[in-house]
Amino acid sequence: MKDYFGIHPTALIGDNVSLGKNVTVGARTIVYDNVVIGDDTFIGPDCIIGEPNVAIHTERDAYVNPVLSIGKNSLIRSGTIVYAGSTFGDHFETGHRVTIREQANIGHHVRIGTLSDIQGHCDIGNYVRLHSNVHVGHKSTIKDYVWIFPYVVLTNDPHPPSSTLVGVTIEEFAVVATMSVVLPGVTIGKDALVGASSLVRSDVPAEAVIVGNPGKQVASVRDIKSKFDGTPVYPWRETFDRGMPWQGVGYAQWEASLTAP
Amino acid sequence: MKDYFGIHPTALIGDNVSLGKNVTVGARTIVYDNVVIGDDTFIGPDCIIGEPNVAIHTERDAYVNPVLSIGKNSLIRSGTIVYAGSTFGDHFETGHRVTIREQANIGHHVRIGTLSDIQGHCDIGNYVRLHSNVHVGHKSTIKDYVWIFPYVVLTNDPHPPSSTLVGVTIEEFAVVATMSVVLPGVTIGKDALVGASSLVRSDVPAEAVIVGNPGKQVASVRDIKSKFDGTPVYPWRETFDRGMPWQGVGYAQWEASLTAP
Amino acid sequence: MKDYFGIHPTALIGDNVSLGKNVTVGARTIVYDNVVIGDDTFIGPDCIIGEPNVAIHTERDAYVNPVLSIGKNSLIRSGTIVYAGSTFGDHFETGHRVTIREQANIGHHVRIGTLSDIQGHCDIGNYVRLHSNVHVGHKSTIKDYVWIFPYVVLTNDPHPPSSTLVGVTIEEFAVVATMSVVLPGVTIGKDALVGASSLVRSDVPAEAVIVGNPGKQVASVRDIKSKFDGTPVYPWRETFDRGMPWQGVGYAQWEASLTAP
Repeated sequence: MKDYFGIHPTALIGDNVSLGKNVTVGARTIVYDNVVIGDDTFIGPDCIIGEPNVAIHTERDAYVNPVLSIGKNSLIRSGTIVYAGSTFGDHFETGHRVTIREQANIGHHVRIGTLSDIQGHCDIGNYVRLHSNVHVGHKSTIKDYVWIFPYVVLTNDPHPPSSTLVGVTIEEFAVVATMSVVLPGVTIGKDALVGASSLVRSDVPAEAVIVGNPGKQVASVRDIKSKFDGTPVYPWRETFDRGMPWQGVGYAQWEASLTAP
Repeated sequence: MKDYFGIHPTALIGDNVSLGKNVTVGARTIVYDNVVIGDDTFIGPDCIIGEPNVAIHTERDAYVNPVLSIGKNSLIRSGTIVYAGSTFGDHFETGHRVTIREQANIGHHVRIGTLSDIQGHCDIGNYVRLHSNVHVGHKSTIKDYVWIFPYVVLTNDPHPPSSTLVGVTIEEFAVVATMSVVLPGVTIGKDALVGASSLVRSDVPAEAVIVGNPGKQVASVRDIKSKFDGTPVYPWRETFDRGMPWQGVGYAQWEASLTAP
Repeated sequence: MKDYFGIHPTALIGDNVSLGKNVTVGARTIVYDNVVIGDDTFIGPDCIIGEPNVAIHTERDAYVNPVLSIGKNSLIRSGTIVYAGSTFGDHFETGHRVTIREQANIGHHVRIGTLSDIQGHCDIGNYVRLHSNVHVGHKSTIKDYVWIFPYVVLTNDPHPPSSTLVGVTIEEFAVVATMSVVLPGVTIGKDALVGASSLVRSDVPAEAVIVGNPGKQVASVRDIKSKFDGTPVYPWRETFDRGMPWQGVGYAQWEASLTAP
C-alpha cells in the first residue's frame, strides 16, 4: 500500500503547523495554520484540519487562525473536517466525514463515528463513544464513558428559532440509543438508558430506563436481563470492557485500584 | 492563511463558466460547464459545482450541461455538491457536504446546513433556514422565512414505491423541529410549529402546535410562553430577528415600512 | 464536459488493480491495491475504492488489502468510500458520499442512496433500493427487491453496548418507510410495509402494515387503496415496475416466464 503512511505529496500544510513524530497526513488533506498534531497520529485523505472560523470572511488578511490541538496516537479517517479552536486528547478516533466545529473541548480515548456533526462550544469527556451520524448541539456536555448511538440529536433551543440556547447534559456511563432526541436543558442521569426512537423531554434519573414518544420511565436498568442468558446487563460497565480502561481486569477491580493506597 | 481566497491552482474549471469579481474557488473544487457565479461569492475546497445530470451517462458527447446560477455574496462551504440546472439567489450559504440536485429553485438569503440533502425539483423561498441534515424530497415547496431543524424529512411518495409523487408545502414562518417527518401532500400552515420527533400525517392549520407520533394539535403557538420569563414567544418573527430583514427594526415596523406610501 | 470520462490524471491507482474496458476513474479518486472493477463502470471524483481495513494500522508493511470486486455497468457517484473485502454485483449504483465497510456481500442491480452508511458484515440481495441516509448495521440481511427509505436504521445490539450482535432480516419485497428503526434480531416478513417513523420491536408477519412507536400491526397491505383512484396498491410488485426485471411486462407474466418449460 504505497503512499498510505507519511506526508502525502498532495497534502497542503499551512504555516506554524507542528506535526509530531510518525504523523501521517493523507492525500489532499489540508492542514491550516496553527495546528498541533501529536506523535503517531494518522490523518487520512481528504480531511480539513484547522478549518478557519467564519470570521475569516470579514477579517480577511487580519484573521489569525485559533490553535487546534489533536493528541497523540489518534486516527482521523478520510473526509473529516475539524475547525480551528478545538482541543482533543490522545487516542482520538473518527470515522469518515465527521464534522467538528470550533470550541469543542474533547477528552482522551474518544471515538466519533462516520458523518457525526459536532456543532462546537461543547464539552465531551474521556472514553466517550459516539456512533455514526450523531448530532451534538452547541452547549452540550457529555461526561466520561457515555455511549450515543446513530442518529441521536442533542438539541439546545427551547423556543426555535431563538437566541437563548440551553444545552443537554449526559452523565457518566449513560447510554442513548438510536434515533432518540434529547430536548434542550435536559440532564440524563448516570447509568441511565434511553431506548431507541425516544423523545426525552425532562430530566432522567440515574439508572432509569426511558422509552417512547414522549419518553417515559418504564424500569430501572437493573431490571434488564440478557436476552441470551437472563443475567443482569446493566450498569454496562460491569458486563462490557472492550476498549475501556478496565479491559481484562473488570470494572470493580479497576476502580478499586484507582483508590488503592 | 495563504491560498484561502482566490482561484486555487488545483481547482478545475470547465468551459463557459462565468465567475464574478472577487470569487473564490477552493482547492480541488470542480466547476463544470455552463455555471454562473455572482460577485464576491466564496466556494470552499472539495466542492462540485454544476454536477452533470444522469443523462450524461447515456448522451455522452452530445450532453450539454444545463445552466447553474448562484447569486452574489454567497458562501458555499467545503464538500458541497450542486447539480447543474438549479438556481440560487444572492447571499446563499451552505454548511459542509450539502447535496443539492437539479431543478431546485432557491431564493435569496437561504442557508442550508451541513449534510443536508435537497433532492431537487423543489421551490425554496427567501430567508429560509435549513439546519444540518435536512432531507427535502422532490416536489417540496418551502415558502419564505421557514425554519427546519436537523434530521427532518419532507417525504413525497404516498404509496412507496410508486411513480406518483406528491410534495409537502410549508407556509411562511412555519417551524419544523428536529427529527420530524412530514408525510406526502401535507401542508403546514403559516406560523405553525411542529415539535421534535413528530409524524405529521395531515394538514396543519396556521399557528397550530403539533406534537407526537402520530402528530396531534395540542395548542396554538400563541399559548407558548418563554421558559425564561413567561412572555409570549410566537409568532417568532415578533421576538427574533437575527439575520432577518427586520433585524434591529422589529417585524411590525419593518412590515409597515414595506407598504408605506 | 472535458475529462468527465476516462482515467483522470489526478486519480491515484494502487498495485494489482484490474480495471475493465471503458472504466472511468474520476478526479482525485483513490483506488487501493487489489481492486477489480468490471467493464463500463463509472467511478466519479473524490471516491476511495478499496479503503484498507483497520488492521493496516497495526500490520503496516505486512498488511495485504483484501480483494474488492465491483461488477460491470456500475455507477458510483462522487465521494463514495468502499472498503476492501466486499463484493458487488453488476449494475451497482450509488449516490454521493456513500460509505460501505468490509465484508458486505451485495447482489446485482442494487442502488444505495447519498450518505447511506453500510457497516459491513452484511448480505444485501438483488434489486434492493436503499434511499438516502440509510444505516445498515453489522449482520443485517436484506433480501431481493426490498425498499428502504431515508434515515432508516437497522440496529444490531440488544443490550448496548455489548459484544453479542444480532442482525435484522428483511424478507423479499418488504418496504420500510422513512425514519423507522428496526430493533436487533427482528425479521420483517415478505411484502410487509413499515410506515414512517415506526419503531419495530418484534417480528413483522408477511403482508402486515406496521405503524407507530411502538410499532403495531394496523392492517394488511392488501387493505391499502390508492389515494388517487381507490385501487389496490400492494403488493407493490403488481403496480410498480420501474427498474425492475418485470418492467414493461408485468410481475405475474414475468414470474410465469421464469418457470416456463
